[in-house]
Amino acid sequence: MQSRSNPKMNTDLIVFFDRVRPAIDGALAEFLPPETSSPQRIHEAMRYSTLDGGKRIRPCLCVAAFSAYREDWGRILPIASAVEMIHSYSLIHDDLPAMDNDDFRRGKPSCHKQFDEAIAILAGDALLTLAFEVLARTNDFPAERMLHVISVLGAASGSSSGMIAGQVLDLEAENASITPGQLEAIHRSKTGALIGAAVWIGSYLGGAPAPDLANIKQYCDRIGLAFQVIDDILDATDGSNRDAGKATYPSLYGLEKSRAVARELMQEARQALKPLGKRGELLLAFCDYLESRTH
Amino acid sequence: MQSRSNPKMNTDLIVFFDRVRPAIDGALAEFLPPETSSPQRIHEAMRYSTLDGGKRIRPCLCVAAFSAYREDWGRILPIASAVEMIHSYSLIHDDLPAMDNDDFRRGKPSCHKQFDEAIAILAGDALLTLAFEVLARTNDFPAERMLHVISVLGAASGSSSGMIAGQVLDLEAENASITPGQLEAIHRSKTGALIGAAVWIGSYLGGAPAPDLANIKQYCDRIGLAFQVIDDILDATDGSNRDAGKATYPSLYGLEKSRAVARELMQEARQALKPLGKRGELLLAFCDYLESRTH
Repeated sequence: MQSRSNPKMNTDLIVFFDRVRPAIDGALAEFLPPETSSPQRIHEAMRYSTLDGGKRIRPCLCVAAFSAYREDWGRILPIASAVEMIHSYSLIHDDLPAMDNDDFRRGKPSCHKQFDEAIAILAGDALLTLAFEVLARTNDFPAERMLHVISVLGAASGSSSGMIAGQVLDLEAENASITPGQLEAIHRSKTGALIGAAVWIGSYLGGAPAPDLANIKQYCDRIGLAFQVIDDILDATDGSNRDAGKATYPSLYGLEKSRAVARELMQEARQALKPLGKRGELLLAFCDYLESRTH
Repeated sequence: MQSRSNPKMNTDLIVFFDRVRPAIDGALAEFLPPETSSPQRIHEAMRYSTLDGGKRIRPCLCVAAFSAYREDWGRILPIASAVEMIHSYSLIHDDLPAMDNDDFRRGKPSCHKQFDEAIAILAGDALLTLAFEVLARTNDFPAERMLHVISVLGAASGSSSGMIAGQVLDLEAENASITPGQLEAIHRSKTGALIGAAVWIGSYLGGAPAPDLANIKQYCDRIGLAFQVIDDILDATDGSNRDAGKATYPSLYGLEKSRAVARELMQEARQALKPLGKRGELLLAFCDYLESRTH
């Protein structure tokens, strides 16, 4: 998400994300065990797969949502970092031979290729465990709120309607014909739930009042799904063939209809933010960013 | 842990564990997603590997430690169940082909044999995630205490000195020569940390005063290590050869010296409990149980 590649993107959002990203990277580097601490190989693997120049969309959105209500956004960094650790664990496990069997991730060998399968499984486990430990050790917010955050993130990552549910449904759908309803369920759980949780938690800990939280929940619901629909569109148009054999919006609906679905979701997301007025500006700008990616 | 096979075991402890075990099983059955809820296969796998008639040593110890301070031990069941979920996830992942490659677990096909590798990886991930979610949703204890419990369990399961560290060290030690110090570190982190945490958390949430908690920590440290040393001894004497290629106390010290190490640890554990008087009775009886297994 750099300015050059997204000419239409809202300048304030670019500036904000460019300021937040190094802070996220710094927090992650601090929370992850040093490479020199025993057992070294797993700590090397955790750092290799997490400190890799990712776009940090989820934690940046979390910070953006928080900053709509409070200026001191440094306080939310541990929570935003924990969200990124959960994202990173999910990528390591998704890449495993028994899952999507991807040898590369972000232009370098995936964790199990760089290390080995055992270390990759354990590095994922350890990132998930560390994420919850970091959340539990944050004492900068009321304890009841932090417990609620842990519970929300657990559900967004879990097997009933979260990320794990999405990965199971995605594996089951491989090379099978599925309905539009099933594809939406996969995208909502596999990608949408964690992105939505990242935003919602940011505003919740920022102290957003209940009506705002309800509107932000609507927004999260729409951008979470739109994020994956747009990712599908990009994969279909950049010739990477990364999604071969996977059900995607373009494979089910065609490109034009997929773009229309994304536009409609963005419209609904913007609508949900209207009552927030100026507080919704950064999140609104994220809609512009997402939409600019489809052109 | 049934009375017939452990003639020397303290009757009170047998009676107590026999009463607690069905309550743990009931709580687990309630917290785990039903087999009929989508995606069904992962929920079947989570239940298959968790509701399998395990001995429930960790959650029973957690309840025993709690009941030394409070009678209403039903309140600790969600926390004890979460500990068992973490134990169950670790067994599923340890059995994977890339790890210990065990086709059987507790007399039936291991999770990846009964289902497949992808489901086994995800079922483990989901049990770990659900454990933290269950802990975060328990509102029967002060929120600050629950956050501390989550943080303690995270560390006991984690990659620095917890269960994951132990599994990495154990894999690295396979078919290699290691020192007694390294073997102790493996056992302490791989097995001892979670058992110790289960006991300590029980007494902490039961409201044990600080001096008791410090003594119980000593006790946990000793029984956690002793538990694995005695498991090594049993594996060496029952002819199962389950630990072939793995470093164990008997392979490093011989059987007699290993038994002496276990006895010494038990002595230190009993010593640590002395100041607790009558409150230490059940935990003391657990020392008798552990020791009876070595004969």
